[in-house]
Amino acid sequence: MKVNDNLFEIGKRRYNIESIDKALGGAKYLPDLKLPQMLYGKILRSPLPHAKILNIDTSKSERLLGVKSVITAHDTPRIKFCSYLHLPGNKLPLEYEKVRFVGDEVAAVAAIDEDIAREALELIKVDYEELPAVYDPEKAMWPGGPKIHDEAQNNISSYVKREFGNIEEGFKNSDYIFENRFETSAVSHCFLETTGCIAQFDLSSKLTVWLTTQSPFHLRRQLALVLNIPMSKIRVNKLYVGGGFGGKTSLLPLEAICVFLAKKSGRPVKLINTREEQFTTGRMRYPMIIELKTGVKRDGMLVVRQAKVITDNGAYDNKGASITASTCGRFVQLYRVPNIGYEAYVVFTNKQMGEAFRGRGGPQGVFAIECQMDIIAEGLTIDPAELRLKNANLPGEINPAGNRITSCALRECIEKVVDESRWNEKRKKPSNNRGIGMACLIHTAGGAALYGRGNFSGAIARLNEDGTFNLITGESDVGQGSNTVLAQIASEVLKTPIESIKVITGDTEITPVSLGTWGSRVTYTGGNAVLAAARDLRRQMFAIASEMLETNIEDLQAKDGKVFVKGVEDRWVTIVEIANECFNKKGIPLIGRGYFVDKNIIPVDSRTGYGNPYPTWAFGCQAVEVEVDPETGKVSIIKVVAAHDLGKAINPMGVEGQIEGSVIQGIGYALFEELKWENGRIVNPNFRDYRLSTFSDLFPITTLLVESNDPDGPFGAKGVAEAGIVPTAAAVANAIYNAVGARINSLPITPEKILFALRRQKHT
Amino acid sequence: MKVNDNLFEIGKRRYNIESIDKALGGAKYLPDLKLPQMLYGKILRSPLPHAKILNIDTSKSERLLGVKSVITAHDTPRIKFCSYLHLPGNKLPLEYEKVRFVGDEVAAVAAIDEDIAREALELIKVDYEELPAVYDPEKAMWPGGPKIHDEAQNNISSYVKREFGNIEEGFKNSDYIFENRFETSAVSHCFLETTGCIAQFDLSSKLTVWLTTQSPFHLRRQLALVLNIPMSKIRVNKLYVGGGFGGKTSLLPLEAICVFLAKKSGRPVKLINTREEQFTTGRMRYPMIIELKTGVKRDGMLVVRQAKVITDNGAYDNKGASITASTCGRFVQLYRVPNIGYEAYVVFTNKQMGEAFRGRGGPQGVFAIECQMDIIAEGLTIDPAELRLKNANLPGEINPAGNRITSCALRECIEKVVDESRWNEKRKKPSNNRGIGMACLIHTAGGAALYGRGNFSGAIARLNEDGTFNLITGESDVGQGSNTVLAQIASEVLKTPIESIKVITGDTEITPVSLGTWGSRVTYTGGNAVLAAARDLRRQMFAIASEMLETNIEDLQAKDGKVFVKGVEDRWVTIVEIANECFNKKGIPLIGRGYFVDKNIIPVDSRTGYGNPYPTWAFGCQAVEVEVDPETGKVSIIKVVAAHDLGKAINPMGVEGQIEGSVIQGIGYALFEELKWENGRIVNPNFRDYRLSTFSDLFPITTLLVESNDPDGPFGAKGVAEAGIVPTAAAVANAIYNAVGARINSLPITPEKILFALRRQKHT
Repeated sequence: MKVNDNLFEIGKRRYNIESIDKALGGAKYLPDLKLPQMLYGKILRSPLPHAKILNIDTSKSERLLGVKSVITAHDTPRIKFCSYLHLPGNKLPLEYEKVRFVGDEVAAVAAIDEDIAREALELIKVDYEELPAVYDPEKAMWPGGPKIHDEAQNNISSYVKREFGNIEEGFKNSDYIFENRFETSAVSHCFLETTGCIAQFDLSSKLTVWLTTQSPFHLRRQLALVLNIPMSKIRVNKLYVGGGFGGKTSLLPLEAICVFLAKKSGRPVKLINTREEQFTTGRMRYPMIIELKTGVKRDGMLVVRQAKVITDNGAYDNKGASITASTCGRFVQLYRVPNIGYEAYVVFTNKQMGEAFRGRGGPQGVFAIECQMDIIAEGLTIDPAELRLKNANLPGEINPAGNRITSCALRECIEKVVDESRWNEKRKKPSNNRGIGMACLIHTAGGAALYGRGNFSGAIARLNEDGTFNLITGESDVGQGSNTVLAQIASEVLKTPIESIKVITGDTEITPVSLGTWGSRVTYTGGNAVLAAARDLRRQMFAIASEMLETNIEDLQAKDGKVFVKGVEDRWVTIVEIANECFNKKGIPLIGRGYFVDKNIIPVDSRTGYGNPYPTWAFGCQAVEVEVDPETGKVSIIKVVAAHDLGKAINPMGVEGQIEGSVIQGIGYALFEELKWENGRIVNPNFRDYRLSTFSDLFPITTLLVESNDPDGPFGAKGVAEAGIVPTAAAVANAIYNAVGARINSLPITPEKILFALRRQKHT
Repeated sequence: MKVNDNLFEIGKRRYNIESIDKALGGAKYLPDLKLPQMLYGKILRSPLPHAKILNIDTSKSERLLGVKSVITAHDTPRIKFCSYLHLPGNKLPLEYEKVRFVGDEVAAVAAIDEDIAREALELIKVDYEELPAVYDPEKAMWPGGPKIHDEAQNNISSYVKREFGNIEEGFKNSDYIFENRFETSAVSHCFLETTGCIAQFDLSSKLTVWLTTQSPFHLRRQLALVLNIPMSKIRVNKLYVGGGFGGKTSLLPLEAICVFLAKKSGRPVKLINTREEQFTTGRMRYPMIIELKTGVKRDGMLVVRQAKVITDNGAYDNKGASITASTCGRFVQLYRVPNIGYEAYVVFTNKQMGEAFRGRGGPQGVFAIECQMDIIAEGLTIDPAELRLKNANLPGEINPAGNRITSCALRECIEKVVDESRWNEKRKKPSNNRGIGMACLIHTAGGAALYGRGNFSGAIARLNEDGTFNLITGESDVGQGSNTVLAQIASEVLKTPIESIKVITGDTEITPVSLGTWGSRVTYTGGNAVLAAARDLRRQMFAIASEMLETNIEDLQAKDGKVFVKGVEDRWVTIVEIANECFNKKGIPLIGRGYFVDKNIIPVDSRTGYGNPYPTWAFGCQAVEVEVDPETGKVSIIKVVAAHDLGKAINPMGVEGQIEGSVIQGIGYALFEELKWENGRIVNPNFRDYRLSTFSDLFPITTLLVESNDPDGPFGAKGVAEAGIVPTAAAVANAIYNAVGARINSLPITPEKILFALRRQKHT
């Protein structure tokens, strides 16, 4: 803990600094915003899963009183987009040749109220020629089936095959080989606030949008592309955002459509998804089929791992290839495995698009790895915790793919979970249909070099006239509490109470360019930029203080809202006095500036897959205790113990909240959340039929914060926003097996699947 | 012109960058802004010029349906304020013991609409005990008269007496002595937009105000004082502002009252002056009585100047002492005078308060000096231009009060005016009741160290992803075009088209602390900060470019939107490529930061008056040609020639506009603008009875921009926003004398005064 001596603010339990505003209703979300002359938009969506568009007749709709604008693709530049701007996209904001899933965007209207807009949609006549559709990615690859995109042979959007080490040798040298197939489900982000946008053009054709985004600057780039206007003609404002979980990281057709409506009507337009639209056309966690073949030594040491992944890409490219790469990364990264190979197919189907979702590919891959680890442990009659400890990642390790691990406390996490969960005692005598299971995780803890660019952030810290500070950052708090963490980092550097730091964010016009919230990156990446800005400001404050105290800058030290001459208790000036000196005497309006330039990432070679995708890594281990009713198949969660290596807990209350939220979301992924289709139509697009964890599902969660003090993180911190969901489903599956002997390899683990497995047990 | 070789943008004629928005109605002013749940405020004002308040009964008003809040001083912390925060103030936002002018603030209401608010005012019952009042500052000083403030003996708010050189010796050594008395009038700023405010508290008690101010940060300091809350709990937003001219530089009771109404009602409140309120309770240019005694040598060389000034301070202290000091400064500063003395009384009267007004004291003092210069010229039979050239200020001069003049082109200005106006020809043969007169000026051209603090500015320049720039400054454009000038400065440094620079300003939360618009300071002070920020950013861009071009930073040069290797025409990168390198490869979101710390000002010794109040100085000369109708006394302006030393014209069209506007305002000051009182009540509070220049008054103005290339100004520039009005009235008075022989020493020079003088001529 040497780097963290005498901490002033880091490690303090803090409510989010926006709490009062949120709790008392002062926080304004997009639906609260209303502009003069504002119109309301609605989107006409395809009722068919796959069809040619023969004709769109908007004439009746345009004549409806109160309708101000009706648009089709012909009112747009028809530029296709994809989250990855350097890749060719295949989604249009409005389609005009074909529709490829139920809900695909075809036309839109803006009217003076929502009722008229809805009525106007009904007056648009679209002639379709229905085409055969396909929903199963394995079937979609069969030759001769429905062709969703002309350019995608057998509906394969992308294919990748990699080998690190030597697979063939690995299997030769293995004592045992385990082969299993796993399937993960399509789940919806279910954020409290559905996605939406307000768009307004001013008289100089400058566009301002207010929207629900995790990444204002990325969104601006994508909007500039599909609108075909320069980025600087677009101002993106993020208000308070009601949750993101990865689902608000990319441009949505809705946002572009809202802008086109504003452009054509010449008035501001508000367009917000209904909850049903959110479920049916919002995006899903990429469902995957994973076949995992692993070779081990008799003593449990992993020798070789080979995976085949089939990802259901939905109807258009978004992040399918990238998320699948992330999933495959887990096969390489979790545990020390000298030989790894994988091949992955990303396959179009006539369903809504997939999207990043908390853990971005990790929950899928880790479900496979960690279920199989228990299968291996059982096969070798080794305790699952023991098997994991044997193979656990270690600090300083470079794996065969070139991934470099700096800080790592995976072993400690496992050991702490074993202790805290009374693992040994509980594994020895499972009783009353109760069982305990565990799973580990690896994940990025500081973003990545995505979107064809680096991983960076910038911040400005400004001294105010009354000795308080403004911190201006391009990073985005969407509810995760990152503004609080960034304020704590500045508070620590400046030794000023956190209440004296005002965080300003969410507006592309005034904040430095930064990449926003995804990949658990804000604490690490944004935090490092804030650290640099606060230090730059402190240096300037010390320069002022050194003149006031008639001493050298090197002899100064910040402490408790003051700057002291080191070792001299009675020679100091307060920050307020420094502000007074700056603003009332010297006339120097101090401004600190900080950049974070990620040096740890080594771009992954697109030919070989070799490189280091993340600046630093999160590790963790969770144990879940369950009780299974053998009559009904119902699973009750008794307790969860979650130990996470987060480098350093800047706000322990905040990270506990993140881990608890992740675990609860992970339990839903494990047991009941699932989007269901019938003939390409989602049949459970509401919170009655799509089951989400509620208060009545809650259970005790013990979070253990393991501080490995990352050498590159701000005050040793790493990101932890996603990690908590990654291992939970596997731990639940392993606990169910421990309880009743039912091994379920597909998510969600419904009572039906458990009962079916239990009956098969009986009959065999 | 050696410093200004190869200019890219400086010197280009630019429309203001906000022109489109303003011309097409997109620019939003305070009256356009409406918040949800917003109430409308109205102020109950004293109907008496001087009275004790015995009782205020608001009970009936509070019971009126639609009234949400009624306040008196008892709802406020009753903290007295003054523009100069380091001085004790004597004005309360709401008075409760005494009222001191007709319009003084007594109570206020907020209601759901303006009609109800007006009705509610009528239901407030105030019992007054009327006191004797006094309106003439000379009478106000008589012992035993009405006492406006207990602490002000004989109603004298302040008195100062200074001597530089030796007055007695000076008069002894003079060949001739001239003594004259001058009087200047009370005029209203007459900005298009009356003052107003919207105030809103959020749930964390943070106050946001939107208002019409020239100086958001100064206003925040004053608000913090009268509200007794920390500055950082206040966010000040300046929208587009419809003119200021000095009248929007200080906190107004209206703004504080609006905030108190918002606080008590818990809802946002809008409060805007009616035009009548603006005339009767908005502020006036300080009227002054100036007695000037000047000793000269036979050849016209000035030897000694002695002045006595009596300033009508109105009912409360605002800037009376400071503006009077500024007026007295002109006696010291204009022309080389080795011995100068003055004494000045600032005197309370039962009238509205005075305020800074374009030229801040200069137009009053220069009217006296420059009328007397013509009187001296006539007495000595020297041509007035010749007399001025003999005594003109010179670069490098330090006068007896310690004022240091850096750049100075006063002689050139006089010579150019003589040429351009065909002075010699026209003075020789005045005919047809036509005449020509001239006057010179000196003024600050870069602010001052006012408000008890330095003269400083800060700026941030940010590179955007598409190679455009955001410039964030705390300075305020209130219509004068300073944002355009600041953008031009950044454009010049970065060699990027001005269209690619977006200026962001007007919000205390996001901009660096700066002092705002007054004292012709923004081009010089704000411009220097922008220059520093742009250079800091350029240095960083060069660092990136040097790696891209594989050369040293010192070998680089910006030109035409590119960075070149010096002398190598085909080795360059574009700014867009640098942005691409920063944002897509290196991950460095470039931010430039600049401060301007004024080193030229030497704080004026409060005991002796010795020091240097301004960083640099504006000079100029105007000639006015008039025709006087001897039957009616009507004066027609035939032509004005205005030559101004502005260092360097960054935007020639902008400075021409400033000079033309000043001259037109100066003609109004000379000939017809005047607030008129009867028994303490203003009788012409509207644009029918208060005569302002209109299009039908216009006349040709030739502006001559004389570039002295100030050594400390950005690209040599100095401020010119106020200078144009300073000499105009004197030039008009001198021209009238030249035309018909009527010497009028009091403003405005009405037809009545001229006829009276002509009749007196006839009779003598």
